[in-house]
Amino acid sequence: MRILILNGPNLNKLGDRREDHYGSLTLSKIEESIRYEFPKDEFFFFQSNLEGKLVTYIQNSENEYDGLIINPGGYTHTSVAIKDALEIIKIPKIEVHLSNLSGREEYRQKLLTTSSCNGYISGFKENGYLAAIYLLKKILTK
Amino acid sequence: MRILILNGPNLNKLGDRREDHYGSLTLSKIEESIRYEFPKDEFFFFQSNLEGKLVTYIQNSENEYDGLIINPGGYTHTSVAIKDALEIIKIPKIEVHLSNLSGREEYRQKLLTTSSCNGYISGFKENGYLAAIYLLKKILTK
Amino acid sequence: MRILILNGPNLNKLGDRREDHYGSLTLSKIEESIRYEFPKDEFFFFQSNLEGKLVTYIQNSENEYDGLIINPGGYTHTSVAIKDALEIIKIPKIEVHLSNLSGREEYRQKLLTTSSCNGYISGFKENGYLAAIYLLKKILTK
Amino acid sequence: MRILILNGPNLNKLGDRREDHYGSLTLSKIEESIRYEFPKDEFFFFQSNLEGKLVTYIQNSENEYDGLIINPGGYTHTSVAIKDALEIIKIPKIEVHLSNLSGREEYRQKLLTTSSCNGYISGFKENGYLAAIYLLKKILTK
Amino acid sequence: MRILILNGPNLNKLGDRREDHYGSLTLSKIEESIRYEFPKDEFFFFQSNLEGKLVTYIQNSENEYDGLIINPGGYTHTSVAIKDALEIIKIPKIEVHLSNLSGREEYRQKLLTTSSCNGYISGFKENGYLAAIYLLKKILTK
Amino acid sequence: MRILILNGPNLNKLGDRREDHYGSLTLSKIEESIRYEFPKDEFFFFQSNLEGKLVTYIQNSENEYDGLIINPGGYTHTSVAIKDALEIIKIPKIEVHLSNLSGREEYRQKLLTTSSCNGYISGFKENGYLAAIYLLKKILTK
Amino acid sequence: MRILILNGPNLNKLGDRREDHYGSLTLSKIEESIRYEFPKDEFFFFQSNLEGKLVTYIQNSENEYDGLIINPGGYTHTSVAIKDALEIIKIPKIEVHLSNLSGREEYRQKLLTTSSCNGYISGFKENGYLAAIYLLKKILTK
Amino acid sequence: MRILILNGPNLNKLGDRREDHYGSLTLSKIEESIRYEFPKDEFFFFQSNLEGKLVTYIQNSENEYDGLIINPGGYTHTSVAIKDALEIIKIPKIEVHLSNLSGREEYRQKLLTTSSCNGYISGFKENGYLAAIYLLKKILTK
Amino acid sequence: MRILILNGPNLNKLGDRREDHYGSLTLSKIEESIRYEFPKDEFFFFQSNLEGKLVTYIQNSENEYDGLIINPGGYTHTSVAIKDALEIIKIPKIEVHLSNLSGREEYRQKLLTTSSCNGYISGFKENGYLAAIYLLKKILTK
Amino acid sequence: MRILILNGPNLNKLGDRREDHYGSLTLSKIEESIRYEFPKDEFFFFQSNLEGKLVTYIQNSENEYDGLIINPGGYTHTSVAIKDALEIIKIPKIEVHLSNLSGREEYRQKLLTTSSCNGYISGFKENGYLAAIYLLKKILTK
Amino acid sequence: MRILILNGPNLNKLGDRREDHYGSLTLSKIEESIRYEFPKDEFFFFQSNLEGKLVTYIQNSENEYDGLIINPGGYTHTSVAIKDALEIIKIPKIEVHLSNLSGREEYRQKLLTTSSCNGYISGFKENGYLAAIYLLKKILTK
Amino acid sequence: MRILILNGPNLNKLGDRREDHYGSLTLSKIEESIRYEFPKDEFFFFQSNLEGKLVTYIQNSENEYDGLIINPGGYTHTSVAIKDALEIIKIPKIEVHLSNLSGREEYRQKLLTTSSCNGYISGFKENGYLAAIYLLKKILTK
Repeated sequence: MRILILNGPNLNKLGDRREDHYGSLTLSKIEESIRYEFPKDEFFFFQSNLEGKLVTYIQNSENEYDGLIINPGGYTHTSVAIKDALEIIKIPKIEVHLSNLSGREEYRQKLLTTSSCNGYISGFKENGYLAAIYLLKKILTK
Repeated sequence: MRILILNGPNLNKLGDRREDHYGSLTLSKIEESIRYEFPKDEFFFFQSNLEGKLVTYIQNSENEYDGLIINPGGYTHTSVAIKDALEIIKIPKIEVHLSNLSGREEYRQKLLTTSSCNGYISGFKENGYLAAIYLLKKILTK
Repeated sequence: MRILILNGPNLNKLGDRREDHYGSLTLSKIEESIRYEFPKDEFFFFQSNLEGKLVTYIQNSENEYDGLIINPGGYTHTSVAIKDALEIIKIPKIEVHLSNLSGREEYRQKLLTTSSCNGYISGFKENGYLAAIYLLKKILTK
Repeated sequence: MRILILNGPNLNKLGDRREDHYGSLTLSKIEESIRYEFPKDEFFFFQSNLEGKLVTYIQNSENEYDGLIINPGGYTHTSVAIKDALEIIKIPKIEVHLSNLSGREEYRQKLLTTSSCNGYISGFKENGYLAAIYLLKKILTK
Repeated sequence: MRILILNGPNLNKLGDRREDHYGSLTLSKIEESIRYEFPKDEFFFFQSNLEGKLVTYIQNSENEYDGLIINPGGYTHTSVAIKDALEIIKIPKIEVHLSNLSGREEYRQKLLTTSSCNGYISGFKENGYLAAIYLLKKILTK
Repeated sequence: MRILILNGPNLNKLGDRREDHYGSLTLSKIEESIRYEFPKDEFFFFQSNLEGKLVTYIQNSENEYDGLIINPGGYTHTSVAIKDALEIIKIPKIEVHLSNLSGREEYRQKLLTTSSCNGYISGFKENGYLAAIYLLKKILTK
Repeated sequence: MRILILNGPNLNKLGDRREDHYGSLTLSKIEESIRYEFPKDEFFFFQSNLEGKLVTYIQNSENEYDGLIINPGGYTHTSVAIKDALEIIKIPKIEVHLSNLSGREEYRQKLLTTSSCNGYISGFKENGYLAAIYLLKKILTK
Repeated sequence: MRILILNGPNLNKLGDRREDHYGSLTLSKIEESIRYEFPKDEFFFFQSNLEGKLVTYIQNSENEYDGLIINPGGYTHTSVAIKDALEIIKIPKIEVHLSNLSGREEYRQKLLTTSSCNGYISGFKENGYLAAIYLLKKILTK
Repeated sequence: MRILILNGPNLNKLGDRREDHYGSLTLSKIEESIRYEFPKDEFFFFQSNLEGKLVTYIQNSENEYDGLIINPGGYTHTSVAIKDALEIIKIPKIEVHLSNLSGREEYRQKLLTTSSCNGYISGFKENGYLAAIYLLKKILTK
Repeated sequence: MRILILNGPNLNKLGDRREDHYGSLTLSKIEESIRYEFPKDEFFFFQSNLEGKLVTYIQNSENEYDGLIINPGGYTHTSVAIKDALEIIKIPKIEVHLSNLSGREEYRQKLLTTSSCNGYISGFKENGYLAAIYLLKKILTK
Repeated sequence: MRILILNGPNLNKLGDRREDHYGSLTLSKIEESIRYEFPKDEFFFFQSNLEGKLVTYIQNSENEYDGLIINPGGYTHTSVAIKDALEIIKIPKIEVHLSNLSGREEYRQKLLTTSSCNGYISGFKENGYLAAIYLLKKILTK
Repeated sequence: MRILILNGPNLNKLGDRREDHYGSLTLSKIEESIRYEFPKDEFFFFQSNLEGKLVTYIQNSENEYDGLIINPGGYTHTSVAIKDALEIIKIPKIEVHLSNLSGREEYRQKLLTTSSCNGYISGFKENGYLAAIYLLKKILTK
């Protein structure tokens, strides 16, 4: 199975953020543990701070991957462009949030991109990515 | 691992609800597939239409179970009582929603009980329960 | 014709409430006048203050009754659980409110359960139940 | 019994509107079935697209009719003028809506004229008029 | 001085409305007392329940009158059309409300037409018209 | 091609309104330039300040015209009745606004009638009508 | 007739404010023109920038004056204390605003003190005080 | 004096909740200190997590008790049913909240049940019950 | 025990206000009954209509009194300044409201000063002061 | 005439989007039909998913083009940066939307960039671009 | 240069407030450091808890000072009277806030007085006053 | 001292924007005057229209600069991504706005990025940058 894992703005600085919300791992350690947990699958990781670049990656994912996992970071709450791009592609896509958004600031409650995905997982820090892959496999092998 | 799986109002009528939002399985088939997927763990299932009964089950879960999975159904959006009960107990707890709430009616957008859980999973129909157990095990064996 | 008539919280105390909004009859007098007006039909009356019990009665009504008349009382404005239960069952169902809700307090303006019924009648005090039966018969004999 | 039945804007085009909300009858067929159901009463029908004309008819109804049934159509949600006119007259008056307003668009949720009537009936298509007459008779013969 | 006094919907039924808000006079008695108080001026009275007719009268007033006094009744709160018509004409115009709007229902608090007038007077019942004429004379003789 | 061009309240006073928003032409000059630009088509112009009259014209347009262009003026923001009438008729219909509504007052931002048209054009003053005809021809000759 | 005329904050600086909203007169010139227009009555003028002092003056006015005219300036929109004081006293009281508040900033639209007065006059600059006295005499000699 | 003291959901778990908001006592210790402080009165304690059971207890209290003290817990903010039940009974009733609600989460600011009581006390932890009894005695011996 | 009792605007006119909300006693009779009920304590009473004076009294209370009881009257809902002053001082402080605020006007629902106090009591008219002293003694002797 | 036509995010995927909202053409077919309809003019097309790149193109357009047509896609509703860039340049600019925005989701109703353009066209799918060019020519040759 | 520095309610208690928001200096130490940093200028300091006194000082500042620095404290968010006074005077005026208001409570987000100043500085504790003087000198010597 | 000065979208076009809000200088003249005023410090200037590039610059600033000054332009109001990036870095950071935002359009009132900075300065045009450097030096040499 070929899976694209997209991370949005500031996720490249994960180790520097508040540990209670974001856990203690860096992005590269998350990649390691994904590869360790699911050794037979192919993963492609891409992080960008640019909204438009994420849009382009989403648009192109359809032909090359079986599924998409995305953590749009701050763009979750503001980007109609990413939302529209997700709606266009036909492969399964899952949104992951490290923190439990339902208990955070008001401006993080509006989930704009989320309804264009199959579903979302929020609050399990780095384990959220693992569960997303677990779920992608369930969907794809159904 | 001993896990309590609580289901709120109308989940006993799952097979009769809109398939696009809730999938085609009944609650008993979901139980079967949970036991099939995780044969070594003990699961206890309870469904109630009564808000107060769910509160009591949550309160009592702490001493008898390692973790709690709850789908509060319609009470997700209205029950301060369930929210408070979840906040009191100390074991890991995960909220599951069958449909992707971020894309549904306005009155289903307010997630009152959710911020008292470790995290939540929304939109993966019956697979959401499996992923919740997968995550509970990650949390408990950390 | 077999009709279930459900009454929600505080309707058992009808005679003690404000006469301008709720009329002067008690629930048992309403039952009497229903039986007097429609002597050939079978009516089953149930009142409960418990949200979850009403949910259960609604769920079970489908197999035993031709139609359902419900006055959810205060739960009209707050219960997603009753709304969902009404949506699931397939028999005709009519909501009745004794007072004219459109002219009352703000918090009684949100009609959550109502859109899951065929229609509703509001403001005619005890006569509202009679009109609901009159309408049920029209729907069922169409 | 002499009853005035007022219909507001676009109800003259009933047959051309969405059948799920408005039923399949035209206004003239509704008139027929009213006369068939209540052969002993006198009915006067008036339809207008003009807000001010409806106001004038309401104002004048008091001296000539025993009761008033009104379906203000789109003016239900916007007309303070019709609301004020209904409040002034002393005969019983009932508002009828063909569709179940509680489940429709946001701008159809504000019921401005409704609180000046005795009560209202919503969602029973053409049968709503029959139930309104049924109720008017109950009120007038009390 | 030639003054046009326009009255909107339901003001022709003044004597029948709630005395606490609207005073006890009818429109014709108000006309009498205006002519008695200001015997040297010419007054032209027009009442209509039709929004569009009021628009037309306002549009035409500019060439024939020195000033305009208008009580738009229920249209005060809803009519962009009357607001626009008032904005177009160049003669002084004063809005009069019989009741003190600042203390009434929420939907009577939005004053749409009012900001297109020189000013407004609210709460003095029939005396409001007299004060409006008193003020028109001050403005016109400045 | 036979096209009906409806103009709502105050558009008969176009030359007297604020030039920055409404341009300098009168309604009759707009008619002239339409006939000059599209000499082979038949145009029928109607302006009314009465909401209900516009409703009637819309209702009747279906049988006699190939397309409808409407500038509902102030009724754009308040008339559910015009909105419903536009929804009923099946011929192509285009809404035109002389000013760029997106940059004006709050109460002109709610576009009630607009979503019942094929589309709308806003901000090009008298040229908006020409573009509307240009577009109607594209739609009708497709 | 003995009348107290209270002016709130910044009205002592009237000549320095924006002429389009507040006219060109100073407070002392307004006093002069009041005495010139109503030579037989006694007027007492008091201006204060202190909310609490205005409250005290209002409380004490009841025993010494026949009527009260107040321009609460900026306190109109924020002072529950002045509102409560006005509600307590029993003599007629009229609120005057120099500018037409209905067309100004959002925060000047909330009229808190106003509903405790008999009525209010807004938009006639210095003439508003004269009309208020004219109205007080009508009320007191009724 | 016979007093019924009702406690709502989760108050049976008082000792486990956040000490800053709820104090350190358990419900049984509160009962003890009430009996110690008011040794001559009779107290009846009832706690339930079920909304409908609390409704029933309130309804029945009227005939057996002199006064009612209620802490509706999470139902304070959501239960129209409890609000209506409190409104029906005629004995004095006082609402108690352990924490100072005015400084807590937004969803705890809406006090639905409260306006049906004589008054309420908020923020004094276990002492709030004592003050409520102190006040009940003042009211009953007046 | 030395207690400062501050009363805000219009409480000096208590006997003249609406009896249903404010009871029948004047401020001096309340003082009497306080001294009668708690003969061993020292009370200092101060009433002011001036927001800033209340701020100064609160600031100075810390060094001279054991506790503070405040009824900020209309300033409860609008004064950030009083709120900040209460937050600064360290002695126990209790807010008292004569009427049950939860059932009154919308603008009296925002409790700005209240969250800076230990707690508050609302709805018990003059008895509220007695209960506040009763509670202050509990807090201070703990 | 030299015209720049800018397209925002996801318009490069036009053929893959919902046909009811976006029509069936791809961006390159739209370009073809523009060149076919207006063979004498020069058109320059640019599409980008990057908000900042669109800002730069807008800034630079002023010196090289006679007019600008922009479809900002999802950035219409969220980009203050594009809005500001459009406001700065002095050439005529027209916004085009393929779908009728007035009838779509709430978050597509806020038109942020639009008020910085001369006007906008919404709902005519690919024909909207043609009408925009038609209008640009009218504006530029005036 | 002669500069008036006005401080509003509770700033006289600076040392007692939360250090994270307000720094550790008292008002007199701030005065010292201002005089130390700008030894050649004349400063006049005034603090008051009274809204009306601040209004009076602002009104009078124009003739005696070259510039005004004001920290209105809690009145920033509620005082239309101070806002209006600041708007009237013509000398440069700068608002200073010790804490970063953009990150604090909702009720501190509304900046009413601020838009009547040249600009404002927020979040730099005592250094904010120094920067304000630095800026006043830039403005005055331009 | 090494300071990074970041400018967001459209600030490269400063000379072309409205002079009343943005002053008359271009970005390069501002750079000159900064270097003239603070000749001993090192400044690095970067402007970008791309949200993501600004995020990257902020992330990297921590290791190379002593402090950061940022004018996020239109992204101030919409970018959660920039807000998060600012929150992550530990060096002092100050936000500068050329215009006084508190007096501008509604959509410029939401300051999303601002609460992640030490403080902000608004309304002093090019002098705002100088004051920000003045403040950075105060903070860094403390």
